[in-house]
This record gives sequence, C-alpha cells and structure tokens, in this order.
Amino acid sequence: MIVDFWYEFASTYSYPAAMRVEAAAEKAGVQLRWRPFLLGPIFGAQGWNDSPFNIYPAKGHYMWRDMARICAAQGLVLKEPVRFPQNGLNAARLALLGAEEGWAPGFTRAVYLANFAGQRDISDEAVLAELLTSLGLDASDAIARSRTPENKERLKVQTGEAIAKGVFGSPSFTVGDELFWGNDRLDDAIAWAAARLTQDL
Amino acid sequence: MIVDFWYEFASTYSYPAAMRVEAAAEKAGVQLRWRPFLLGPIFGAQGWNDSPFNIYPAKGHYMWRDMARICAAQGLVLKEPVRFPQNGLNAARLALLGAEEGWAPGFTRAVYLANFAGQRDISDEAVLAELLTSLGLDASDAIARSRTPENKERLKVQTGEAIAKGVFGSPSFTVGDELFWGNDRLDDAIAWAAARLTQDL
Repeated sequence: MIVDFWYEFASTYSYPAAMRVEAAAEKAGVQLRWRPFLLGPIFGAQGWNDSPFNIYPAKGHYMWRDMARICAAQGLVLKEPVRFPQNGLNAARLALLGAEEGWAPGFTRAVYLANFAGQRDISDEAVLAELLTSLGLDASDAIARSRTPENKERLKVQTGEAIAKGVFGSPSFTVGDELFWGNDRLDDAIAWAAARLTQDL
Repeated sequence: MIVDFWYEFASTYSYPAAMRVEAAAEKAGVQLRWRPFLLGPIFGAQGWNDSPFNIYPAKGHYMWRDMARICAAQGLVLKEPVRFPQNGLNAARLALLGAEEGWAPGFTRAVYLANFAGQRDISDEAVLAELLTSLGLDASDAIARSRTPENKERLKVQTGEAIAKGVFGSPSFTVGDELFWGNDRLDDAIAWAAARLTQDL
C-alpha cells in the first residue's frame, strides 16, 4: 500500500521526517506520496492562533531540546529559525505543484533545510525562487503557476482531505485509513504499508 | 545515573510505560526511581480542566487507536476505562508510600492494569484496598498512612518537583536535568542514563 506523507512547512518535527522518509520508503519498497497541507486551519478550529509550542512554554522548551537530540542523532544541522512558526503557505503551494511534477521531494527537503538549518525566511518568494533555481527549475514559472486560483483551491482541498483522514498535526502518515502521527511513527507507518504490500491485504 | 520515572495514574501512555520500565532499567543496569505525581495542577495552569485527549477530539480519537497498536505489540490488554480520565489522587498517595517502602513497582502496575485492562474504578479506595491485599500488603494500614497530612503534602511537593524539572505530561523521565517525555522516549532515557553510568560523566 501507498504511504501518504502529510506535512506543514512550519512544523519542527516534520524536518527530520522529511529528510529521511524517501530513503526509508525506498528501502521498504513502499510507494510514497508527498502531501503538503496547512496546519493553520486545523489549529484555528481548536482555538489556537499560534503554535502550541509557543502557547504552552514548557512543551515548547522541551520540543527544542528533543529536536536537538533527534537532529544530532540523524546528523542534521538545527539552528534557531528566523521566527517560529514561519508561514509555510507559499512553499506549500509550490510543493503541491512539485508533487504533480516530480520535484516535491527535493524542494521539500530544501525548504525544511532553509527553515531549520539555514535561518532563511521561507515565506519570502525570493528565497523560494533561489531554492527552485538550485534544483534546476524555472523559478518564475513555478511561482506563477503556484499562485493560480486553481492551485490555491487545490491546497484547500488537500488540507480538507487531511482533516477528513483525522490529521491534527505534522508530520502525519496515512496508509489507507490508518493514521500515524509524528516523526516517531514514520517507521511504523512504512512497516504497516510494507506488511500489507507483502500480504496483499 | 538514576532514571526518575514520573507518572500520573490517569494517563494512557503511562500504562505501557509502567509495564515495561522496570525490566528495561534492569537490563541496562540503571537505577530507577518511581515518582508518582499529579497532572491536574499542570493542566489547570495551562487552562485545561479536562484531558487534552477529551478537549481535542481528533487527538483523542487518534490516541486510542495508537494505544491499541502499542498495547497489541506489547501483549497488553486494553479495554475502555470506566471513565477517562480517572481520578488518580488516592492511588498516587499510595504509590508515594510504596516508593519509600519498596512496593511501588507492583502496586503501580496493578493500578494501571485495573484502569486500562480491568475496567475498575481506581479512585475507589475499596478497589485500591483489593489491589494492595493482592500484593500481600496491609491495605487498611497503607490507606490510613496515605491519608496523613504529611503524605498529602509530600505529593504536592513531588508534583512541584516535576514542574521544576520541566515535566508537562505523563509519562516523563528525567536523568539529572535531561527530560524525556512520553512512552516513546523510555528507551532513550534509559540509554542516556546507561551511557553516563559507563562513562562516569
């Protein structure tokens, strides 16, 4: 079965997940779909107008320490972002195009690195253009197409699909109707899909 | 170094943690301290008068499915508790005594099993008396001693110590000043302590 990888670019724990999910899926022989979505509407519906890591300081303090341990173990640089959370809307609209056209994996990793290792402003289209160019893409063209009403609407639809699947945080993984939440469940989600590939369930 | 295991009896993910933490610590040659505390004051300070799993239904729905997967993998029975969350105050006062007198591990596991596998009311002192008796303890005597003003105060002090360590959820583990949150971090916490045992850091 296919693993859907749901991610919001502002999300901290999605960074280590995005950096390893493709290799993990390939190793298991499992197909992966890159599904950018927005947490804003989901958090808003819960009454949060900010990241819960900012609203609940003890949890936020812990998260940064936990992220430092996780990134160190994974050999990833982690630096304090220019702000937290950053606005991932423009990047998500681009990643949605990239998922159709085959460049979402590289672009997604580049955006997470820019956010959590490069101290770049990922809401800035000039920064996103630079990342697109570094991947050999036509940045102006991709940005223009990401801004069409159709593409904006598709991101809303995709976020609605995440909500319908029960997604409430990022990263999340779905395999059919089975939901897995968090970087900690990445390997479980892939194993779940791999087991159902073999058994043809 | 010593691992402090911080737990609240109402907490779902603390059940699989409590059932395996002693064996994991013994295997690693790490000393373990059983530290019951109360989440109520911590959640209250965050503006919650109920479990976040009840306040945020999508998160709660997911948690029960996630718990089912975890308990199945660990060979643990999981049944819907008589209510969620249950009031763990009386049990925590007893476990605090047990931690001093050496019977906290068995009592703690018995209370979690009663809550999450046995569908018993763990706030009921008759139920707690039954569990104490099954462990070969003098139930009336233990309950009477758990109700003294001194013991009640000690539980408040212990909860304050958890807060001072940065604890915001259950289960948590501390090794010196290093905090680990969640059943998912149990093995990391023990490995952290074991590494510092060997290296004498």
